[in-house]
Amino acid sequence: MTLEEFRTYGHQLIDRITDYHGGIADRPVMAQVRPGELIASLPEEPPLQGENFAAVLADLDNLILPGLSHWQHPSFFGYFPANSNLASVLGDYLSTGLGVLGLSWQSSPALTELEETSVDWVRQMLGLSANWSGVIQDTASTSTLVALISAREKASDYALVKGGLQAQAQPLIIYTSAHAHSSVDKAALLAGFGKDNIRYIDTDAYYAMRPEALAAAIERDLAEGLVPCAVVATIGTTSTTAVDPLRPIGALTRQHDLWLHVDSAMAGSAMILPECRWMWDGIEQANSIVVNAHKWLGVAFDCSLYFVRDPQHLIRVMSTNPSYLQSGVDSEVKNLRDWGIPLGRRFRALKLWFLLRSEGVEGLQRRLRRDLDNAQWLAAQICASEEWKVLAPVHLQTLCLRHEPAGLEGELLDRHTRGWADALNASGHAYVTPATLDGRWMVRISIGALPTEREHVAALWERLQEIVRC
Amino acid sequence: MTLEEFRTYGHQLIDRITDYHGGIADRPVMAQVRPGELIASLPEEPPLQGENFAAVLADLDNLILPGLSHWQHPSFFGYFPANSNLASVLGDYLSTGLGVLGLSWQSSPALTELEETSVDWVRQMLGLSANWSGVIQDTASTSTLVALISAREKASDYALVKGGLQAQAQPLIIYTSAHAHSSVDKAALLAGFGKDNIRYIDTDAYYAMRPEALAAAIERDLAEGLVPCAVVATIGTTSTTAVDPLRPIGALTRQHDLWLHVDSAMAGSAMILPECRWMWDGIEQANSIVVNAHKWLGVAFDCSLYFVRDPQHLIRVMSTNPSYLQSGVDSEVKNLRDWGIPLGRRFRALKLWFLLRSEGVEGLQRRLRRDLDNAQWLAAQICASEEWKVLAPVHLQTLCLRHEPAGLEGELLDRHTRGWADALNASGHAYVTPATLDGRWMVRISIGALPTEREHVAALWERLQEIVRC
Repeated sequence: MTLEEFRTYGHQLIDRITDYHGGIADRPVMAQVRPGELIASLPEEPPLQGENFAAVLADLDNLILPGLSHWQHPSFFGYFPANSNLASVLGDYLSTGLGVLGLSWQSSPALTELEETSVDWVRQMLGLSANWSGVIQDTASTSTLVALISAREKASDYALVKGGLQAQAQPLIIYTSAHAHSSVDKAALLAGFGKDNIRYIDTDAYYAMRPEALAAAIERDLAEGLVPCAVVATIGTTSTTAVDPLRPIGALTRQHDLWLHVDSAMAGSAMILPECRWMWDGIEQANSIVVNAHKWLGVAFDCSLYFVRDPQHLIRVMSTNPSYLQSGVDSEVKNLRDWGIPLGRRFRALKLWFLLRSEGVEGLQRRLRRDLDNAQWLAAQICASEEWKVLAPVHLQTLCLRHEPAGLEGELLDRHTRGWADALNASGHAYVTPATLDGRWMVRISIGALPTEREHVAALWERLQEIVRC
Repeated sequence: MTLEEFRTYGHQLIDRITDYHGGIADRPVMAQVRPGELIASLPEEPPLQGENFAAVLADLDNLILPGLSHWQHPSFFGYFPANSNLASVLGDYLSTGLGVLGLSWQSSPALTELEETSVDWVRQMLGLSANWSGVIQDTASTSTLVALISAREKASDYALVKGGLQAQAQPLIIYTSAHAHSSVDKAALLAGFGKDNIRYIDTDAYYAMRPEALAAAIERDLAEGLVPCAVVATIGTTSTTAVDPLRPIGALTRQHDLWLHVDSAMAGSAMILPECRWMWDGIEQANSIVVNAHKWLGVAFDCSLYFVRDPQHLIRVMSTNPSYLQSGVDSEVKNLRDWGIPLGRRFRALKLWFLLRSEGVEGLQRRLRRDLDNAQWLAAQICASEEWKVLAPVHLQTLCLRHEPAGLEGELLDRHTRGWADALNASGHAYVTPATLDGRWMVRISIGALPTEREHVAALWERLQEIVRC
């Protein structure tokens, strides 16, 4: 593609994206396609000759857009919000357009230094002390994997440079709650700990980890000669945004010298609101934290912030230093390849920096408070209605609810719940997420897409009441 | 940022990026800044109020651009090319602009299905049989980590669902060559194998793994009761683009039932040229392959293609299936979260698809052949000159060279090499990578940036001859 074609089609693309967002509310939120539809409509073989770009853009409208669920839709209440603030989108455009890579500080110094500064800005916004250093990872799955590998190497005194986990005489044990995200399990398994060595600690009536159950599990393992290694606590679980109590958990990890990793992928964004910081009271006792800036906060995916108290430990676990990556200034700079798994690095700091500068701290705070208010409003409507139930505390912007008409229980109730949730999603009017809680299906309503205002939440509430009557 | 602001500034950004590429040849290739310069010029604290976007864009020119090394510059000969074809850039713009996520097929069906089709197009272009299934990862570091974890679980009969690597009675062993990329070592260490359990197999005069040395190492380990697990062979090593002989290596891995992972992150792109496929003769014996489409091929970073022969094994190792990610069509679709580490997924297929459609197979082949020709031309110039030496076979587009004036040896020669390479980089006229080979410094010239034509390679050759005279 020539430069002038890029200019021409680039301008067209900007208009298309603008119009896409301008008209997004008229689209069905959830894609209404069957498995294999797109694949069947595409050629089986790649084109030999280049095609006119206009043809590619036409396929967008006809083939791609109908196959998307629209995460930036005002009636997207699924999963958790994955907001792409438009200033952040432009930051990402700049990153891709410049096409520079951060293999090392020297390979593009501004890439590394802007990441250092912008992540430190977020640290301040979250109310974290200056004892934390941060870096951008792709997702919380990766951040948590890095955390558990770091924990493994601390507990094993850097076995990676010797016999590895294979030389571990007594198994290292990981503790988390049954409500932790699936990525915690996955990270522990990928890091080699093994399913037998993960303890799922009991939760209380509000789905938060019970510290006394954690204490008992640690004691039990110690008595058996096993080696407690790390605790993963969650601030804002995926099912119910439950909040594990960090202060007593932190005291236990200090007492037993365990790694404490805090998964606040979702709730971390709320920590820019001082009134929400009770949720991670005790956070300074942790060793590592993940906060996904690409969720509610609004940085275009992917931008998972990983904070550690001891960057030298992280570097010791992750560093590689082949000759072709060395430079004369290595002692004076950060080489972020040693802060995570990938060597190559996009200029992701730009999209974070653009968001922070364009919105400012107070602009971001205003929007998050809007969503918290909307969640409380919806919770109040539900609590005031007879047949609906809110099933867990609404700490943040996610509600877990069920419609429980008299006489419906057990599997019949499950079928009812799945039925209306699927019907709502299929209608295209809203997108919600069915999930299980205490072995029964319920529906998660996660408020917080950028364009979601009170009117959209009110319309959802109307629809919920209608759809269960069908 | 409002929609209309996005439209306005988006158009400005397109013009800026176009102009950036149009004028890139006039910029110094390597950033000429000192450590900490950018950090010192930025506010220590985030802005409370949002700023006008024009101010952000102004900072770009004054603060960010001078701090970049320009990877898309025609005189960028560093590391390996990281080409951002402009059609691919537009594909990435679309991805970020749409802001959809692929947590599961259902969360945006077209995202998953376009990835399946476009990666399969590349499979065909590479001449791989239909027995391979591919997926996009971020980088080769991650792909290789996934490969070694897969190998670990095969050799241990899925220990991850039991005691993990901690329950391994006899250590599992990884084999690679001393010229393998640092990410192989890193992957083995992160996967828990331990440094003691990595064997660095001897290489021949052309820096390729010696199969008979591999065979001997495997036999030695077997005799000691250890458990050979995986071989990582490289097609196109980072130092010299050396080619490990896959056919005899593959025979050994078949004989001993070991996992064979092929790191063709760089050379993989060249497999779209039938005349280059001798380099991976025997590839069908492998279990997994990584090809970085974000290198020479031209997909905007990041787009590492990971191919496996047994996707069911990959899914069994990587899968997670919490209730909130389940859907009624799971048995009919691919859920790509089970093909790698992260749960969240960008619509990266768009940038690959845009590249393939815009350039066509033949367009891509033409460009790669141009670069191969340029490398052979430069090699011929060097071989014809008295004091210069090409130090390794030029299979691809990378040359390893040294200026060896009479009387200079050992550390004096090293100092001379580092001296002229650093001077060249500091001049801003070209960017090359010093590295060590057989314990001595040399310089890598990696040809293949998109705008690099013969004239730029010829100008480099002139400059090389000049700079050693200074």
